[in-house]
Amino acid sequence: MAAEIRDVVEQYVALVGKGATDEIVALYAEDAVVEDPVGTEPHRGHEAIRKFYAAIEGLEKRTELITARISGSSAAFHFSVVTTVGDNEVELSPIDVMTFADGKITDMKAYWSQEDFIFRTA
Amino acid sequence: MAAEIRDVVEQYVALVGKGATDEIVALYAEDAVVEDPVGTEPHRGHEAIRKFYAAIEGLEKRTELITARISGSSAAFHFSVVTTVGDNEVELSPIDVMTFADGKITDMKAYWSQEDFIFRTA
Repeated sequence: MAAEIRDVVEQYVALVGKGATDEIVALYAEDAVVEDPVGTEPHRGHEAIRKFYAAIEGLEKRTELITARISGSSAAFHFSVVTTVGDNEVELSPIDVMTFADGKITDMKAYWSQEDFIFRTA
Repeated sequence: MAAEIRDVVEQYVALVGKGATDEIVALYAEDAVVEDPVGTEPHRGHEAIRKFYAAIEGLEKRTELITARISGSSAAFHFSVVTTVGDNEVELSPIDVMTFADGKITDMKAYWSQEDFIFRTA
């Protein structure tokens, strides 16, 4: 199961980089809950989750998986998202935690805050 | 609150390195729950949590906080624990997630597996 979970995490990070909303949503169980960042109102179910990812799909970005830990039926991973806006780049590297059942993500929590944004010239 | 949470995370990592069981337990709320690693039976309350940390306090080890993300009243952080046994070192770098209330840790989940141990000669 650990290998299967790691594979979904790798797919997730790559698909966020591509802005591939439908493929991201397909990684989630129908009744999954996404809290991103933790402390904000969660998105419940495929429709709400689709809206959440669709809102950022048009941004030009690249992602990289920094490190992942698999524990039981859960994964915690650190990854970076670099978004390019004109001559500027914004980098955010959250720590996400996902819980899995039957190969699908049932719960995702993203840990980051506004203070974690790094702004620079591309 | 973010600064207070970050301070507790830094204290925690340093105290784990020292094997300072009583001081670690004092960071937790009375009815806190520790699941380390995630997927194993949780330790509930100060007495159970004390036993858990006391079991590893005698080991010669050093710790380092690699990165931390604060989100609402929670923190996720990646840190390393290097344990020295004779001429050998064992490194484990889990991702831990903590939830806080009134400045105390109420819930801790550690994400790692046996596959994450790195063995080397000191």
